[in-house]
Order: sequence, then structure tokens, then C-alpha cells
Amino acid sequence: MSSLGFALTIPARHGRAFEVSAGSTLTIIDVEGEQVADMSALVRADFTEFLSPRHTRLALGRLTLRVGDELQTNRRRPHLRLLDDSVGVHDILLGCCDRYRYELDFHVQGHRNCMDNLTEALAPYGVEPWRVPENINIFMNTIIEPDGRVHVERPVSRAGDHVTFECLIDSVIAISACPQDLNPCNGFRPTDLHVRVAPRA
Amino acid sequence: MSSLGFALTIPARHGRAFEVSAGSTLTIIDVEGEQVADMSALVRADFTEFLSPRHTRLALGRLTLRVGDELQTNRRRPHLRLLDDSVGVHDILLGCCDRYRYELDFHVQGHRNCMDNLTEALAPYGVEPWRVPENINIFMNTIIEPDGRVHVERPVSRAGDHVTFECLIDSVIAISACPQDLNPCNGFRPTDLHVRVAPRA
Repeated sequence: MSSLGFALTIPARHGRAFEVSAGSTLTIIDVEGEQVADMSALVRADFTEFLSPRHTRLALGRLTLRVGDELQTNRRRPHLRLLDDSVGVHDILLGCCDRYRYELDFHVQGHRNCMDNLTEALAPYGVEPWRVPENINIFMNTIIEPDGRVHVERPVSRAGDHVTFECLIDSVIAISACPQDLNPCNGFRPTDLHVRVAPRA
Repeated sequence: MSSLGFALTIPARHGRAFEVSAGSTLTIIDVEGEQVADMSALVRADFTEFLSPRHTRLALGRLTLRVGDELQTNRRRPHLRLLDDSVGVHDILLGCCDRYRYELDFHVQGHRNCMDNLTEALAPYGVEPWRVPENINIFMNTIIEPDGRVHVERPVSRAGDHVTFECLIDSVIAISACPQDLNPCNGFRPTDLHVRVAPRA
């Protein structure tokens, strides 16, 4: 499948997982705008190695992403290379939303959430819930103040905006179309994402 | 043991793990100054719950620690409360050093490193190497520039400086006296740490 490429829609508030081969490109498209994509990635051959924001931040010497950056695994191997980016605002700092977040901070039971989305998407690959790797948050607009305070504002992404990564290691990648509708994270309106995987030209 | 409290020395470049009961205080002392303590903490009753910097950063709305802060688990429960701090400069952003870091970035084989220290310390508790939780770095001086760049400078901690946490959940805590001597992280001179665990007064 991946040798010919494929496309899929991630419905608003839901998650999907899929395999991406080394050398393929992964494009994530914000279909309607202001929609965050929470993403975790595992090395296909060994799930104890995975995309790691905490290693990536040190390797980049930066808390933000730029075209050309190589995101690292927890064994400091280059995992994803950012090839193209029509937005330039993403988050590699904060954990994804989960049922505890909605219960404790918003007093809402049963809200859809990225952790359950990633967990459900990765379950067919045998990834237990508690070992879903740390995520990055494409299109998420986390403001870092000079004094170290952080807060999440509406995304700057507009309809059709996208990022493209080159995948450098055969991987299983999970993406959640973030269901957060109680703060500005998704402009208060969760919508679909579109994903395209293609052999690198 | 923990009901009466205990003390231990973590020799330079090595790691130790120990149990801390809810309600006890954990004090980490920089014996000679400029020594970083990489720390991971797991919930004693269920190792799938652990201290989580990525959840803590969102909960605090900040990338730095202050007295009074509650550090959270990956299930957003308060895990450690910062009671006292004679330094005020710590890192909750970056992954600990590991053999890949020394091999790839410093071209050194077999260098002692925090990941192996934490792994060896936690092995008697049945924690597999790849599931050692994300660490925080006490006394580590990570500079965050206004443009999002980060770099690690010499610690500002001096001999006898300390932090004290209240432990809010029965825990297993692992601490590595960081062996990094090839950059300013520990002032180019790894030294001992001292730890005291006591019932809260």
C-alpha cells in the first residue's frame, strides 16, 4: 500500500493510525482551518523506539519547528524531517488532552480526547494505552512568553494549510484530530484533517 | 524505613532509586555546587502512572518551576509539591543524557550517562529500560531565549543548595547525579548529591 501511497480523512474528534515507510512523505492538511493534529510515531520494527519531543528539543536547541528540522527518536535517530510547512506554528511542548483533562479542568465527563483517539488507533498494532508515546501537536499555537509562561491560543492555520514530513524510518504513525472545543486550541470548532502518504518524488 | 526517614549519598556519575511515602519530604542537596540531579518518579502502586513533565508544563502554564508548584503525573494527579528551593533554576524540558548522546554528539564510547543510571537504579523494581519515565532536571540551567532557542549553561547552584518536595503519592523515585563533563551542564565537574527523606513536619 505505502509503496503507491494513500490518502485518508481523519474525521473531526477522531484518530487514525497507519504505516509509513522510510522514504515516504507524510502530508497533514488542515481542511477547514484552525484544527490541531496530535501525532505520535513509533518505529515499526521496535516499538520501544519512538518519536521523542524531549530529545528533539535538545537536538534542535529550540522549542519550535522549522523547515529542514530533523525530529529525533528516544535513541536520538532522525525520525521525521520537516520538508514543507505553510504555517510555521506548531507545538512540541505539551501533552495531548485526555479524559482527566476534561474531568478535572473542565468538569465534563466522557468528552472525546486525543489520548483515547491515539490509543484506539494504535490498539490494532498492539500498543498498550499507557505506552502511547509522547505526542507533538501540529498546527497548535502555544505561545511562549519571555518569562517562560505558556498558553494556547487559536491556531493561525487556514483552510488547506499543510505540513509535509519525510519519514526516515519505517513507522507506525497515529494522528488525532483534536476534539478540544472548550478552549481556543481548535478555534472552538473541531474539524476534519486530511492525510496523504506518498513515495518521495 | 520511610516512616523514620533516611538519607543517602548519590556518588558522582551514578544513580540510586528508593521509595518515598505520601506525606514525606524529599530533599536533594547539591553537595559541592553546579551538580544536576536527573529525576524520574513512578507511582508505587501502578508503574503505568508516573511524573510527567509534559502534563506538568500545561498544568503550570509555565516551562519553569516555582515554590508551591504541584508537578503532575501522566493522569494529571498532583505527584510532587515544591516546598522549598534555594536555587530557583531547574529544567522540565529536556531528556536526560544517554549513551547515544555521547556516541553521536561527543564521539565518546562507554561514557556514564543518566539514562543508564536511572535504568540500573530502577531495575530492582522491575522497570524495563525503555519505560523509564521522562525525567526532570533539578539544578539544570537551561536558558530559554525569547525566540524559543534553548541552551544549557553552568548551574547557578552552589555548595549546600537544595530543593525540597512533598511527595503526594507513594512513589519510587530514581535520581542520577548527571555524569555530563563535556559541556557546561555540571560545570565540567560531576560531583555527589545528597538525598534526605523525612516525614513531613
